[in-house]
Amino acid sequence: MVELKIIFLGTSAATPTKSRGLSSIAIIRDGELLIFDAGEGTQHAIAVAKLGLNRETKIFITHMHGDHCVGLLGIIQSMSMAGRVKPLDVYGPEPLGGFLRESAKYLRFGVNFPLRVHQVHEGVIHETRDYKILVAQGEHSTPNFSYVLEEKKRRGVFNPAKALKYGVPTGELWSRLQSGESVKVKNRSVKPSQVLGAERSGRKIGISGDTRPTPKLEKFFSKCTLLIFDSTYSERHQYLAKERLHSTAKEAAKIAKSSRSNLLILTHFSSRYSEVNSLEAEARQIHPNTIAAYDMMRLIVPYPDQGEAKFLDISGEQANR
Amino acid sequence: MVELKIIFLGTSAATPTKSRGLSSIAIIRDGELLIFDAGEGTQHAIAVAKLGLNRETKIFITHMHGDHCVGLLGIIQSMSMAGRVKPLDVYGPEPLGGFLRESAKYLRFGVNFPLRVHQVHEGVIHETRDYKILVAQGEHSTPNFSYVLEEKKRRGVFNPAKALKYGVPTGELWSRLQSGESVKVKNRSVKPSQVLGAERSGRKIGISGDTRPTPKLEKFFSKCTLLIFDSTYSERHQYLAKERLHSTAKEAAKIAKSSRSNLLILTHFSSRYSEVNSLEAEARQIHPNTIAAYDMMRLIVPYPDQGEAKFLDISGEQANR
Repeated sequence: MVELKIIFLGTSAATPTKSRGLSSIAIIRDGELLIFDAGEGTQHAIAVAKLGLNRETKIFITHMHGDHCVGLLGIIQSMSMAGRVKPLDVYGPEPLGGFLRESAKYLRFGVNFPLRVHQVHEGVIHETRDYKILVAQGEHSTPNFSYVLEEKKRRGVFNPAKALKYGVPTGELWSRLQSGESVKVKNRSVKPSQVLGAERSGRKIGISGDTRPTPKLEKFFSKCTLLIFDSTYSERHQYLAKERLHSTAKEAAKIAKSSRSNLLILTHFSSRYSEVNSLEAEARQIHPNTIAAYDMMRLIVPYPDQGEAKFLDISGEQANR
Repeated sequence: MVELKIIFLGTSAATPTKSRGLSSIAIIRDGELLIFDAGEGTQHAIAVAKLGLNRETKIFITHMHGDHCVGLLGIIQSMSMAGRVKPLDVYGPEPLGGFLRESAKYLRFGVNFPLRVHQVHEGVIHETRDYKILVAQGEHSTPNFSYVLEEKKRRGVFNPAKALKYGVPTGELWSRLQSGESVKVKNRSVKPSQVLGAERSGRKIGISGDTRPTPKLEKFFSKCTLLIFDSTYSERHQYLAKERLHSTAKEAAKIAKSSRSNLLILTHFSSRYSEVNSLEAEARQIHPNTIAAYDMMRLIVPYPDQGEAKFLDISGEQANR
């Protein structure tokens, strides 16, 4: 079991408010830090959340609007000043490389670690033994790339009765079977498939960036354990959502429902709303399992077969909600 | 009498900390907002301090390091989205215009108000009926421009006894004399100079940006009512101050003393210090009238003949210090 924690570093659209910073979401999975978008102020939020500048990190940018990517400049400079030597991989739309290069020229900052900028495209853009990062294009005023982190299937549950039936003694051989190795017992081979249950699904986290809801995204976000979706507007500003190519809370809920996703988290709220309870309520009419994000909201995302997300308070204890 | 208020929007050097944002200082004088430096996060601090995006504003950049100017991007975008129509004047070193132009290209932001970028040079760069902004170059790893806001002399104090002696009756004629107009009494002209005391000095605010202390700056900051000076390091890190072309708290105090400035405010603290009381103490040994800034510290700066600065708490009441 690998812990997957999410921290909302910034939840405001376009302009920060007193209590909400600009877009950024951190996923901490198995010690690795994956950051989705880095609006102005993200390095400050990283400091507040104590995420550190020297860990294994990848940053994914949904689109080239300033409120989603300007924070990269400060993160890169501060990482460099903090003596980072580990590489940093940054993924985003085509102009990202040029933006970083030009900024480095004007601001004369040196980068003392390998900075690798990857231009994203639809499909799988990163894959490890454990998970994949997938991309699909949304519909916004500038190219927007939605992301999915999809864990690979996990081994099935170990069945002790079956192991004993095949004559495997408790101890080291059990561990080897559990970790996927075949073992020999009295010259007979026992395979993991003989003692493990069916493979279990991993988690799937969807992150929309700024977009209208589209059929392509409905498919892309199919059965997310957690879907984080553009919720810039309330229903009464539906016309603005259409005009400016964002989504309403209700539209986010519709796509969560039609994609058969489990938990929906609303974020990227227009600064015109001093509270977002009403947006949350609008979404819950369609998709009851919905939460409106706030800055520094943190949660542990369970595997699909392990119940509901656990929300933590600032001290890391389970939060009362 | 014109109120002059200062709010420290960000007081950390290079990297923000949990409690300190990147460099920015706001002066609000007679309703006009003058911002000196705009590190990442300044627009958030502007929101917290409720300074507004639609008022008469000028922004002065000391040098082109990211922690002093990257926040301009978000301020300009947010002003544009807030429907600003008033012009914005931005002053800074030569590369500033290019940086803003290139960023606008990559981030595709339109600016819906007149944005005027002025390249600064030593001497007077802006002058109104009431005050001047002056510039002198400091000594840093990239060209750094220190700023002075210097108010013009104010009229002397009105002397009622003298007015009566010259036969001027109380009422409208007194007001006209007080506002600098000559008046006629029984066919004789009475001039303001006959009834007003000597002209009184205005306030002088000095802002160093990032720099070593230099003889040029000592002269430039001569007799500041308030001097805000680079205080990146404590005495034990003097070698770093020399190496990286910053100042220590003690060096800031020495220049405050030798320039015969009144109040010294230390700012731009290295993030290595979790508290800055010791830096304040080091400076006070040289220049007792010294205060270490913190984010959202606000004070009213009095005229030189009107006593000491008044520090306000967040609600605008006089703070206990």
